[in-house]
Amino acid sequence: MFYSNPLIYIDIHDSEIPWLKLFTHIPYKEFSECSREEKEMLWECLDLIEKEMLSYFKPEKINIASFGNMVPRVHWHIMARFKEDSYFPEPMWGMKQREGLLPVAPLELFLQELKVKLEICLERGKHFEETLG
Amino acid sequence: MFYSNPLIYIDIHDSEIPWLKLFTHIPYKEFSECSREEKEMLWECLDLIEKEMLSYFKPEKINIASFGNMVPRVHWHIMARFKEDSYFPEPMWGMKQREGLLPVAPLELFLQELKVKLEICLERGKHFEETLG
Repeated sequence: MFYSNPLIYIDIHDSEIPWLKLFTHIPYKEFSECSREEKEMLWECLDLIEKEMLSYFKPEKINIASFGNMVPRVHWHIMARFKEDSYFPEPMWGMKQREGLLPVAPLELFLQELKVKLEICLERGKHFEETLG
Repeated sequence: MFYSNPLIYIDIHDSEIPWLKLFTHIPYKEFSECSREEKEMLWECLDLIEKEMLSYFKPEKINIASFGNMVPRVHWHIMARFKEDSYFPEPMWGMKQREGLLPVAPLELFLQELKVKLEICLERGKHFEETLG
């Protein structure tokens, strides 16, 4: 687990591309079952991670997806996509296009910087906790 | 165009499954470039459409995705997925699993009902317009 706050946690997905997964601690099946606070936390985090991925990795495009068909527990994928990755312009679940040879900037430094930015969300999380009582 | 308000519009994607696509009128490349009002409108609409799809179609799972790799303009897919559809449990961009034979409830009635519910968002859209000045 790369990051956790009272409402959500973030995992790193092992891939050739920068790819994170967001989960609520409570295992809902569908996104609309989340509380207002959890939804807002997920949206804020997706927005923040996207901005950080864009600024750090300079990808061709950001991809976001929520499927959960195999394991029916809602979670969100956020991926930095590059013209040279193995699947572009297909989604990462599509047909492989090539052997991706990707000179991606180191993930560790990105994660360090992202964690600092996510503290802002964590503070909001604390605020939500107080609101929720 | 199935539905439009001052911030976003919704298209019907021709598919065996119930599948809608959400766009902002302003063609941004990435989601994080949208204004706060546009983001909130998209989130509210995704949440509302998901709930309506769940209640009307009783699908196995809702799938949501934003890619835009071919045409770099951010938009959101929302899909009602069924065990019997051609790709389940793969995403709709994955490997075909079978010839889907889907006894899906009529889309027309769903769209009629959804449009009524979306008026709530439209009213919010008007509110946003006033806020934006």
